[in-house]
Amino acid sequence: MASETVLKGACIIGQSGGPTAVINASAYGAIRAALDADCITKVYGAAHGIKGVLDDKLYIMDEEDPEELKLLLNTPSSELGSCRYKMKDPDVDDTDYRRILEIFRKYDVRYFFYNGGNDSMDTCNKISKYCQKIGYPCRVMGIPKTIDNDLFGTDHCPGYGSAAKYIATSGMEGSKDATVYDTPQITVIEIMGRHAGWLAGAAALASAFGAGPDLVYLPEVDFDMDSFYADVDRVYKANGGKVLIAVSEGIHYADGKFVSEAETSATDGFGHAQLGGLAVRLADLLKQRTGSKVRGIELSLLQRCGAHLASGTDLREAELAGRAAVEAAVSGKTDYMVAFKCIRDAGYQCETELLPLSEVANYEKKVPLEWINETHNGVTQAFIDYALPLIQGAPERPTEQSLPRYAKLKKVLAE
Amino acid sequence: MASETVLKGACIIGQSGGPTAVINASAYGAIRAALDADCITKVYGAAHGIKGVLDDKLYIMDEEDPEELKLLLNTPSSELGSCRYKMKDPDVDDTDYRRILEIFRKYDVRYFFYNGGNDSMDTCNKISKYCQKIGYPCRVMGIPKTIDNDLFGTDHCPGYGSAAKYIATSGMEGSKDATVYDTPQITVIEIMGRHAGWLAGAAALASAFGAGPDLVYLPEVDFDMDSFYADVDRVYKANGGKVLIAVSEGIHYADGKFVSEAETSATDGFGHAQLGGLAVRLADLLKQRTGSKVRGIELSLLQRCGAHLASGTDLREAELAGRAAVEAAVSGKTDYMVAFKCIRDAGYQCETELLPLSEVANYEKKVPLEWINETHNGVTQAFIDYALPLIQGAPERPTEQSLPRYAKLKKVLAE
Repeated sequence: MASETVLKGACIIGQSGGPTAVINASAYGAIRAALDADCITKVYGAAHGIKGVLDDKLYIMDEEDPEELKLLLNTPSSELGSCRYKMKDPDVDDTDYRRILEIFRKYDVRYFFYNGGNDSMDTCNKISKYCQKIGYPCRVMGIPKTIDNDLFGTDHCPGYGSAAKYIATSGMEGSKDATVYDTPQITVIEIMGRHAGWLAGAAALASAFGAGPDLVYLPEVDFDMDSFYADVDRVYKANGGKVLIAVSEGIHYADGKFVSEAETSATDGFGHAQLGGLAVRLADLLKQRTGSKVRGIELSLLQRCGAHLASGTDLREAELAGRAAVEAAVSGKTDYMVAFKCIRDAGYQCETELLPLSEVANYEKKVPLEWINETHNGVTQAFIDYALPLIQGAPERPTEQSLPRYAKLKKVLAE
Repeated sequence: MASETVLKGACIIGQSGGPTAVINASAYGAIRAALDADCITKVYGAAHGIKGVLDDKLYIMDEEDPEELKLLLNTPSSELGSCRYKMKDPDVDDTDYRRILEIFRKYDVRYFFYNGGNDSMDTCNKISKYCQKIGYPCRVMGIPKTIDNDLFGTDHCPGYGSAAKYIATSGMEGSKDATVYDTPQITVIEIMGRHAGWLAGAAALASAFGAGPDLVYLPEVDFDMDSFYADVDRVYKANGGKVLIAVSEGIHYADGKFVSEAETSATDGFGHAQLGGLAVRLADLLKQRTGSKVRGIELSLLQRCGAHLASGTDLREAELAGRAAVEAAVSGKTDYMVAFKCIRDAGYQCETELLPLSEVANYEKKVPLEWINETHNGVTQAFIDYALPLIQGAPERPTEQSLPRYAKLKKVLAE
């Protein structure tokens, strides 16, 4: 799928799905490379991803001050705006695709870069295939992004390393705090990851370096409440009543039901409806069981937008992924997602490669079962060895009055 | 209350109350100064504050490696252990006091330093007065500490600046994340502070620097649900459904009842018992009202132990407070708490002074009402001017594999 001919035209860069600490670094890498590419005549940022294309709401990136643009490296969340928009099968309903092509033609768009996770790669793949089918020359590239780290075919995903670092650091600090009294305290930390346990597993990095959770539960294996109680009882006895637990929001029973959603059974002690998250629910169950003081902590949004704790490695690789997408497209490639190929044996090394979009869209990569310990309440050293290089390095972060200084873009709309 | 005579003997340093990001910096300041003082023959750290004295559980600080000890500057929470122990009135029951004196005599303790908040200053005051009454020469000094910032007589308290910086930074990042879609989202962030709104007010620092909550509610003024709804409706309409709200955990109705504890009334739409915190409760009410997507986020323990975001100013002052307590005692002072006297007019300057313990114990300092805006949903510029200098500076933080490197103390027990 390579073409040697020079394709001249405008490009659109869009951000999609849940924000991360470094998705704007990928945007910066792509925007900067596109602005510098001779064959790219104009660089547009789509407002709220593909919705901005459908709504004809494109920001002219050429109008931005280069220094402010560079501050995207310091700015968490998706500065162009994001969306969660599921594209229909074009064979069933091609309305959106015809509209996208109309906009592409209006602005002479010949390059389309889409930065996101699984659903976004699906969008990207569908648009790519549609352009091919219609015979509209447009080079389409996916740029990976997800704190969930569950994109198929890539060693890891931009956004994961920074979220993992936030979780590990918060785990260390939380562990120090939760063990400060000489009285029992059970603390449950709830971590994102509906289907894959990469993020929850990162809490174990804290334990590996001296202060972290005693127990970690991932959604790759079935959760069993009796085993959980037995685990907690054991740590409770051994540690003078101090237990720190990390759970993935996606833990589920053997029947597939999420623990966060399941009705509390009669044996759990109370039957009324509960609000609040999984951490609070589990903490309450443990309070009834032990009488101990408990705390349920949900890391919530903060774990995915904690740019002040961004991993230098993650930030660098996120920018690289954006730049690599543009460079590949300019060189004639299309219909690919940028992926990472890494070695860890003799020091960590990471380079980009290209994977066909159709191969990555809609597949989920989970934590290998052999990286989860036998008792299903922690991860193995192989997991630590995998994740540790990804959280390394602390980039310089521009500040103003000791608070983060974010990019202030003009966001001039194209007409 | 000054004595010119040199008092020779051992000292005890204890930590008490809720942990902070910098309470160990005060411990370090005091321990280091005590180790260096000729008249102090031995330096003991009490395990879990006054409980360690009562239990005869004292760590010999002289045995610690100086470099590890210095890492206390990098270590959040109370490394010696903390307690929440209310001392009885010695005129009613002097059992604890007689035990404390027994331990003081056993180890020839002539200096007692107690680092904590309001309750701890009460403990410190009672022990000081008891020693005086009995005629046991012992110099007793309080070292202030509380993220709540509510100690009387001091411009501010060590621990507050770092917590404020954590809250402001998280507020900025949370704001970026919570506004990323073009669909309505209401986000409620719950911040510590049962009686004083210093911490919740710090969220407004984020707004002052470009990305933060639209509405901030402090416990100094009565909370009114109808006004709250009107505030939210107004922002909701103006901002396309995006509203970020910061609330102090201590907000209460006019009758004094905490909003977090009050039964949900019939007009609120549902009447069943609720678990989970205030943020989740308010978010749920707003979900019913608007139909919008909502998020309730409780910053929980992480706001008080976020050492990776410690304010350089706070860290320096915390160490200074510990050192100043020892230096004052060595010079003959007793029965005081170290306090801060600051000027902000021509640049920020801060120096220590001494306040009689009896003047500070059991008083609470709240946010002045004139620093809360007229509509009771935010703070004024005077609050920003007060708090901003306290979050300045980012100290060098030793790391190991890009994770915090905490002090590893030997904690050799005295016998």
